Amino acid sequence: MKKTISSLGEFGLIEFIKKHNTKSFKYHNVCLDIGDDCFCFNAYNNSKYVVTTDILIENVHFKKEWATPEQIGQKSIEVNVSDIASMGNAKPLYAFISLGIPKDTSIIFIKKLFGSIKNTCTKYGIHLSGGDTVCAKDITISVTLIGVCYGKPISRNTAKNGDLLFVTGTFGDSLAGLEILSSGKNNLTAFEKNLIKKHLVPQAKLEIANLISKNITITSMTDCSDGLFKSIELLTQNKGANIEIKNIPLSKNLIKYKNNDMDELYNYSLFGGEEFELVFTINKRDKCKLELLVPGAKCIGTITKNKVIFLENGKEKKFKYKGYKHF
Amino acid sequence: MKKTISSLGEFGLIEFIKKHNTKSFKYHNVCLDIGDDCFCFNAYNNSKYVVTTDILIENVHFKKEWATPEQIGQKSIEVNVSDIASMGNAKPLYAFISLGIPKDTSIIFIKKLFGSIKNTCTKYGIHLSGGDTVCAKDITISVTLIGVCYGKPISRNTAKNGDLLFVTGTFGDSLAGLEILSSGKNNLTAFEKNLIKKHLVPQAKLEIANLISKNITITSMTDCSDGLFKSIELLTQNKGANIEIKNIPLSKNLIKYKNNDMDELYNYSLFGGEEFELVFTINKRDKCKLELLVPGAKCIGTITKNKVIFLENGKEKKFKYKGYKHF
Repeated sequence: MKKTISSLGEFGLIEFIKKHNTKSFKYHNVCLDIGDDCFCFNAYNNSKYVVTTDILIENVHFKKEWATPEQIGQKSIEVNVSDIASMGNAKPLYAFISLGIPKDTSIIFIKKLFGSIKNTCTKYGIHLSGGDTVCAKDITISVTLIGVCYGKPISRNTAKNGDLLFVTGTFGDSLAGLEILSSGKNNLTAFEKNLIKKHLVPQAKLEIANLISKNITITSMTDCSDGLFKSIELLTQNKGANIEIKNIPLSKNLIKYKNNDMDELYNYSLFGGEEFELVFTINKRDKCKLELLVPGAKCIGTITKNKVIFLENGKEKKFKYKGYKHF
Repeated sequence: MKKTISSLGEFGLIEFIKKHNTKSFKYHNVCLDIGDDCFCFNAYNNSKYVVTTDILIENVHFKKEWATPEQIGQKSIEVNVSDIASMGNAKPLYAFISLGIPKDTSIIFIKKLFGSIKNTCTKYGIHLSGGDTVCAKDITISVTLIGVCYGKPISRNTAKNGDLLFVTGTFGDSLAGLEILSSGKNNLTAFEKNLIKKHLVPQAKLEIANLISKNITITSMTDCSDGLFKSIELLTQNKGANIEIKNIPLSKNLIKYKNNDMDELYNYSLFGGEEFELVFTINKRDKCKLELLVPGAKCIGTITKNKVIFLENGKEKKFKYKGYKHF
């Protein structure tokens, strides 16, 4: 059988790139290399630049029938700001947008898309700095965002045994929103509309990320783009964690959508992607300080030496990774 | 009639973006804004970073039937290095690659594509620093390249009246190569193979750009990606030029391909795109110095106050812009 990219998967491809990467030289000043939420390089005077890139493709990441051009534009910036946010104490500065646009796209669509990209950039103080526009079969939006990081960028892989694992926001809503959109259902209820909104216009947690990283030592952090299960895996490489699954925050909207079915709710909250919430660890001595600073942050577990274990009322509950796969 | 993106065109879209751009703040340290070959921002200690981005899409910019994965990979890096080169006295440092890959793409294809991206990066001392991989209908390669510029970046729009207009290399070959590929012709002659090579694996003129910008005051510069006619237009905004069209360098391959038909040769050399040669201006006092430094560089005209005029044996010859349009 011919081996296809589908069998390798996204994380496999990143591993492949890392393995086959070019040699880094001293002048590159690499501070945090490929494979984290951002790449980071040291500039002079101790300043550090963080860079992230994401690509959104029509009918893969969004559909014109489901999302307005404003929503597509906003999401394309928010997901990149979210990566910068997870570096801690960072400020996004420059956005580069490459657009692939089908020939028959209306000027009105482009104006709305760009208006929204511009507005979202303005919200975060980002300067629209460059780009490329080409013809394409499907709308393609590639965004590269450069930011400055005022301290040491927070890596995914630096939690210590005994650290507490915290999250912001709720989980599973975005997947539920996507499902409702896919079903083509009309006459939506209020909670269904809320779930859809969470999918279409996620909000980067830049303010919270900066607030906590300025005031507390965050020992590791990531933004949750591929599901909470995956985020936990990323923060516990060569380590483990005890996760209290009942502590994972769920929205009232999701609970209604799943009629309070706990097994279903666990699946949505662990394996739904595109939440863009912060998942991070702190030393347990900082627990009270954090909870005073961000009352909405919830502790969902503890970092251990061994493997990741999910606990429900003290009893182990097994889950297998079935997160969203790009290929 | 509904206005579509096709009626706006690429340069129209860039103008649109510039007009609707976000306000720039002091902390952005903008040194050269959107609309030039690179965006440039000042870091501390007088260092300047230059950034460029380009997107290549299957069946728009390349075809798998025509180009090997190695050629596609190399070109995706060369075209971005070419933008960095045209800033003068610059060094590319970090590459960010976003890939859209169809599900059925073979691992071998990806290995070859990435191997070539890696090798081309190594050639220029670039560190492969990040990226994103997603599923797509057509192969999509979005590259963002960050470099450092050791002096003042050379803009497109700073030539002075009386400056001499120089070019490196020959013009029209890439378009001829594309035509030969499109014709599906077999049993290619040596000159046809050479023309195809110029189209498939262009070479960025980084070394020459650094050599001349270190030793001579280059008053303006661009890399020729959308045809020489367009490059001249970019260097003469609010100015003019007298261009001696007989001085535009032509390759023996192109002359053979067009059977020495001068009118055809003018059209190919002015309106063929994707040459990635340098087009630049200098003060006329530096002519001899330049010609000693880069014997291959050719003077094709003089910057004037008024409009661009093409001259053949002292007589004006009219051309209308019919360069490659993306939309």
